[in-house]
Amino acid sequence: MTDGSTHGSTLGVGMVGYAFMGAAHSQAWRTAGRFFDLPMQPDMAVLCGRSAEATAAAAQRMGWRHTETDWKALLGRDDVQLIDICTPGDTHAEIAIAALEAGKHVLCEKPLANTVDEARAMVAAAEKAKAQGVRSMVAFNYRRVPAVALARQLVEQGRIGQIRHVRATYLQDWITDPEFPLVWRLQKDKAGSGALGDIGAHIVDMAQFVTGDRISGVSALTETFIKERPLPESSSGLSASGSSERGEVTVDDTALFLARFGGGAVATFEATRFATGRKNGLRLEINGSAGSLAFDFESMNELSFYDAGEDPDTAGFRRIYVTEPTHPYVGAWWPPGHGLGYEHSFTHEVVDLVRDLAAGTDPAPSFADGLQVQQVLDAVSRSAQAGSGWEPIAGED
Amino acid sequence: MTDGSTHGSTLGVGMVGYAFMGAAHSQAWRTAGRFFDLPMQPDMAVLCGRSAEATAAAAQRMGWRHTETDWKALLGRDDVQLIDICTPGDTHAEIAIAALEAGKHVLCEKPLANTVDEARAMVAAAEKAKAQGVRSMVAFNYRRVPAVALARQLVEQGRIGQIRHVRATYLQDWITDPEFPLVWRLQKDKAGSGALGDIGAHIVDMAQFVTGDRISGVSALTETFIKERPLPESSSGLSASGSSERGEVTVDDTALFLARFGGGAVATFEATRFATGRKNGLRLEINGSAGSLAFDFESMNELSFYDAGEDPDTAGFRRIYVTEPTHPYVGAWWPPGHGLGYEHSFTHEVVDLVRDLAAGTDPAPSFADGLQVQQVLDAVSRSAQAGSGWEPIAGED
Amino acid sequence: MTDGSTHGSTLGVGMVGYAFMGAAHSQAWRTAGRFFDLPMQPDMAVLCGRSAEATAAAAQRMGWRHTETDWKALLGRDDVQLIDICTPGDTHAEIAIAALEAGKHVLCEKPLANTVDEARAMVAAAEKAKAQGVRSMVAFNYRRVPAVALARQLVEQGRIGQIRHVRATYLQDWITDPEFPLVWRLQKDKAGSGALGDIGAHIVDMAQFVTGDRISGVSALTETFIKERPLPESSSGLSASGSSERGEVTVDDTALFLARFGGGAVATFEATRFATGRKNGLRLEINGSAGSLAFDFESMNELSFYDAGEDPDTAGFRRIYVTEPTHPYVGAWWPPGHGLGYEHSFTHEVVDLVRDLAAGTDPAPSFADGLQVQQVLDAVSRSAQAGSGWEPIAGED
Amino acid sequence: MTDGSTHGSTLGVGMVGYAFMGAAHSQAWRTAGRFFDLPMQPDMAVLCGRSAEATAAAAQRMGWRHTETDWKALLGRDDVQLIDICTPGDTHAEIAIAALEAGKHVLCEKPLANTVDEARAMVAAAEKAKAQGVRSMVAFNYRRVPAVALARQLVEQGRIGQIRHVRATYLQDWITDPEFPLVWRLQKDKAGSGALGDIGAHIVDMAQFVTGDRISGVSALTETFIKERPLPESSSGLSASGSSERGEVTVDDTALFLARFGGGAVATFEATRFATGRKNGLRLEINGSAGSLAFDFESMNELSFYDAGEDPDTAGFRRIYVTEPTHPYVGAWWPPGHGLGYEHSFTHEVVDLVRDLAAGTDPAPSFADGLQVQQVLDAVSRSAQAGSGWEPIAGED
Repeated sequence: MTDGSTHGSTLGVGMVGYAFMGAAHSQAWRTAGRFFDLPMQPDMAVLCGRSAEATAAAAQRMGWRHTETDWKALLGRDDVQLIDICTPGDTHAEIAIAALEAGKHVLCEKPLANTVDEARAMVAAAEKAKAQGVRSMVAFNYRRVPAVALARQLVEQGRIGQIRHVRATYLQDWITDPEFPLVWRLQKDKAGSGALGDIGAHIVDMAQFVTGDRISGVSALTETFIKERPLPESSSGLSASGSSERGEVTVDDTALFLARFGGGAVATFEATRFATGRKNGLRLEINGSAGSLAFDFESMNELSFYDAGEDPDTAGFRRIYVTEPTHPYVGAWWPPGHGLGYEHSFTHEVVDLVRDLAAGTDPAPSFADGLQVQQVLDAVSRSAQAGSGWEPIAGED
Repeated sequence: MTDGSTHGSTLGVGMVGYAFMGAAHSQAWRTAGRFFDLPMQPDMAVLCGRSAEATAAAAQRMGWRHTETDWKALLGRDDVQLIDICTPGDTHAEIAIAALEAGKHVLCEKPLANTVDEARAMVAAAEKAKAQGVRSMVAFNYRRVPAVALARQLVEQGRIGQIRHVRATYLQDWITDPEFPLVWRLQKDKAGSGALGDIGAHIVDMAQFVTGDRISGVSALTETFIKERPLPESSSGLSASGSSERGEVTVDDTALFLARFGGGAVATFEATRFATGRKNGLRLEINGSAGSLAFDFESMNELSFYDAGEDPDTAGFRRIYVTEPTHPYVGAWWPPGHGLGYEHSFTHEVVDLVRDLAAGTDPAPSFADGLQVQQVLDAVSRSAQAGSGWEPIAGED
Repeated sequence: MTDGSTHGSTLGVGMVGYAFMGAAHSQAWRTAGRFFDLPMQPDMAVLCGRSAEATAAAAQRMGWRHTETDWKALLGRDDVQLIDICTPGDTHAEIAIAALEAGKHVLCEKPLANTVDEARAMVAAAEKAKAQGVRSMVAFNYRRVPAVALARQLVEQGRIGQIRHVRATYLQDWITDPEFPLVWRLQKDKAGSGALGDIGAHIVDMAQFVTGDRISGVSALTETFIKERPLPESSSGLSASGSSERGEVTVDDTALFLARFGGGAVATFEATRFATGRKNGLRLEINGSAGSLAFDFESMNELSFYDAGEDPDTAGFRRIYVTEPTHPYVGAWWPPGHGLGYEHSFTHEVVDLVRDLAAGTDPAPSFADGLQVQQVLDAVSRSAQAGSGWEPIAGED
Repeated sequence: MTDGSTHGSTLGVGMVGYAFMGAAHSQAWRTAGRFFDLPMQPDMAVLCGRSAEATAAAAQRMGWRHTETDWKALLGRDDVQLIDICTPGDTHAEIAIAALEAGKHVLCEKPLANTVDEARAMVAAAEKAKAQGVRSMVAFNYRRVPAVALARQLVEQGRIGQIRHVRATYLQDWITDPEFPLVWRLQKDKAGSGALGDIGAHIVDMAQFVTGDRISGVSALTETFIKERPLPESSSGLSASGSSERGEVTVDDTALFLARFGGGAVATFEATRFATGRKNGLRLEINGSAGSLAFDFESMNELSFYDAGEDPDTAGFRRIYVTEPTHPYVGAWWPPGHGLGYEHSFTHEVVDLVRDLAAGTDPAPSFADGLQVQQVLDAVSRSAQAGSGWEPIAGED
């Protein structure tokens, strides 16, 4: 493969991993071309997993034509032009770099890597591959929720003016029970960090995406409320059953930080798995000189917008029900008023990626964007370990 | 076909129509087996439409293997065991009756028919076919929104006690513009009625489903605010562009009625296409002696529940975010907090239908249920034409 | 007193009744001049009640200077220029007519009377008194909630265009318990009707006030869910304790009706004391050709407004937080963002009344307005008794 | 005056200041005894302000019997047993200390003082006076909003278990316009600080009050977005008109901080006057091991409560409409469902204070509580000035 762009009308996909993210990506690959006009049709060529039997079952269920048990085998297959990485963060760097070197496009789940060093190596590989027309993207799917994409549009149009405040939280509660077992997401060697990298990464990316600005420094604290948990007897990411033996929780349960953006805004960020009753409380509020925006994923088809230019008598936060045909991505789906779900964000991600690949343009967010998020997370960790002192975020360039 | 139940592991589907409802059903047929364990795998065998070219394009996009341009051709095909009717209401009776007589299961979009007489004939055909193991279902998809199914469960469990009040609205606004053209949904000969049959049918079914009770009488009024509209130059159901010539609107823009239920509850119902700003405001509130429930499709992943047994100090309407694994249908999808969309209700419909076909049990809602809804709508029309006088709903049996 | 208008700088008030409404009116009389510039200062001269002892205690608590035990004594007092009637509906006509004939202004709680005939007699007395400069007002306090007054302004300004739909409910739940005793509000001879006159009157007035239009006909049903209740051992309106003996409930528990307005709008109305979990759910939604408005008293400082003229990308219901200085009545109170409570509506009522009296202008709503509401309620009763058949509302003039 | 407690049945009040806070306190003094049973009746004896004319006008409007133009004159008056301080923060220490030394009870607006040193001196004076039966209270009125008091009760009852997260914001937007003039609240010498002391103080007190815990350390940043503003031509606290000359803004526009509580909870706090569209967004969310609570002053009659002990199928945040007779303070007012307003929090404050004075018990929050809040604010300032480094809060004792 010499230029990485469109080879005829199909895009052969090889996906590694088939748990939560694998299921979401599969639905996206299956569905994108059914609702959107795509310049290439995705071909769900190969699913890769460690267990031959489980992989075969998953492939049949999810609609993949072939299976492999070693991701390296994907590199040599002619029917694979893109590798979709849906594994835990500790494996991202190795797979992605090898794939890019083999001339395969890469879609990589977030966080890009578990460490800044790994992420840097991935960016280097992506830059090198790009010269060959081989492209890469990190999968911050929430950018493609229509309400979030609309928020970005309104900021770009200047509808809220100069941004002064960002307020971002990602609130979950799935490990409030101290008997919830020590799954891989609670182990530093596998997951890199806890709430910080898993869900904190999403709000960092979303806040930067919607504002169009970057965090320039942070002051942070992290906490692990439950220090020991039962070792898991079985585990698949977000659910598990526990044994009677216990192990140490090596990641944060929550990470909180203050931040400044390059353009002058100040911000609070909070990621936690202990916000009892909040299931997926990914919330963003932005206050600007001319208006405000607010989003909560638990009402994902809505965007709140305040226009300070309105007559004070009738000014107020509007609940925009983001199901109009002119709203981002929405026109491809249903008539007004018929909301979308979580999985649609992945379908939109695939649509945008395929279009970029066909056009030979760079998909966003890039690996460099993923690295920058990683640098913010890293600064958060460092500040938390150093008495919450201010940690500036150094740009790479 | 002699007993209508499972023939091996696939269920061949022939679908008639490929507009809004066709797209929704296609997504359901494609997706059901990817997330749910099905006893038979749907085979999207044949798509049928009047224009060969348009049907072929739709079939390719939506994933149907073959096409036909005459629905009668489906009756003789061995690869079709079920006919899925997604056409306007004036064609339902003819297709459904022929399909049932040909030994094909039938899934028929709502309203079951445009008249009570047609609906009665369909029920007769369904009864006759049932003796041969051939089954039928009318597609009131909103029953399968998890929050609505949960509401039904709570009522069945007695959580709200004896029901006293039902408050149901279906509020849309897509024809408030007087220049919106005279599409088929605004023509009595095609659509049977306006808001009444199109969306009023949904709230009648939903209210009866959730309460587990039936409407025993109504007092109604209907109104057509815009009497003439531009003739459409092109039309596809909910959107169109208009010409300079005008024609008469022959259906209701809105229908309002009071009702009594068999069990003693009183109710208000309202269906309209003129509720400016309400896009799909399908709302149901039920007040019982022990509690209350409230649902609004514009927040489709939520159910409000009031438990009158709580201490008054902490009693209050709870916002149940219906994304827990134990909620109806939800366990097959994503972790808690990751909401579903409009189209999932159709996937659930297909899942339930396929399971019933495999088990040889009767799917619900049945054609008889569809007829009963039609009788309510008919009583509404009669009351509206007769000075809102009370119209009892006669049971068929 | 010969012309009824301002005599110097004070307005002597004599109030009859000191229960729920008496307490609300007292707070209004005490407070109005503290926040608003009034042309006359109210003087809380005399409180009248049947029990000398209880009246004296109430007068001291509420701040009335003198007491009487016979309302007729108020008629001859020079320190009383206005009689404020806060008694049950069966006494309104006698007191009001006598007061007006004695040259006293009258503020009368709603409903104006228990029957249309009484109300007519009151209007006649009001008309006659008006010629002498003696004025009268019926106390539909909810008109003076700032959000409701703002809704009226927006309708008047044409912000929602031609009105097509009105949806009004008044939902309470204070008698869902079958053991709640048979207080006077549940007895037809005292209260005239049940939910219909008590709270239905409010939504009829509010809907007509905000739309600026009048109901031209209705179709109705009423229901009494609990037919017998314990006789009260003690009772003060909304709370009571019951004895072991039972009596018949002679009023409606709920009244529902469809309506048409003179200007072409159609409407649903519902008043009930059995909406479990709804405490004071006085809600009004109005859909017009250019926009919509929605109000719920349980969030009394908010008004929802949809402007159909907005770009569809950013259109949405706005939550106007009605606490801006330019909002009706609000400027006299606190800085933006500091909401008001229930009782403020009475203070505003008194402010408007006092200003009208000083200016010699007619207060609204007038007794004629109260009569018209009574006629609507009467038509509701008649329709409910006659199989929900349509009952036109005859205008008086 | 020797023991400071009840002298007969009245409590003579002398109030200093009559702007925003003075109006709120006056309404409280006027109203408390009308709805609550008080052991002593407040006597609104003297209003004190610098301008004789303006003070006289205010006294008449607000209902004070006498006036003074020098607050020291209050100290010698026999008809004054309590001095209510409603002036800017720079004057609190001098007035309060003198009053306490003169044997007058003191109610002092928040923040207690502009500096920790002043606050310490006030606490010392309060301690000394207490030995003579002379009592003092700092006026954090939001504790007395019924929903906030209910939140405190639920925490005390263990309904949300061990507290892990606190999320507190106070969002306003009244100076987003750069042309808004440099009123006293924007001048450090008068106001001590900006958003931090004015509204940040409220959320610090509220969070500590509801959790029953204290902040043990903070990491902070502050920002002044608009550095210069027009000098005011006239100013009365929250509103003003500006001249063409400009001056430096010497206080913060916003203060953000992370915090830890003594009991192990972590927290984010944010106070700002630049949250466009948020008028009085005093919000508190608390997540505990057994449940969560959320409050927003913009919906002040509501409390959200999540009980993690509920069946997951019906668990959800409940909107408790805090208008039941058993809710704190509510029973004295109206029937269920009739909400209160901002000013009621002051009435409740006065009720509690009068009852404590009569009983000879210590009112809360005490001056020591006010000092502790001041210490938190001081630590916030220090951290913000020192690169957001962690600042522990030293207890006084």
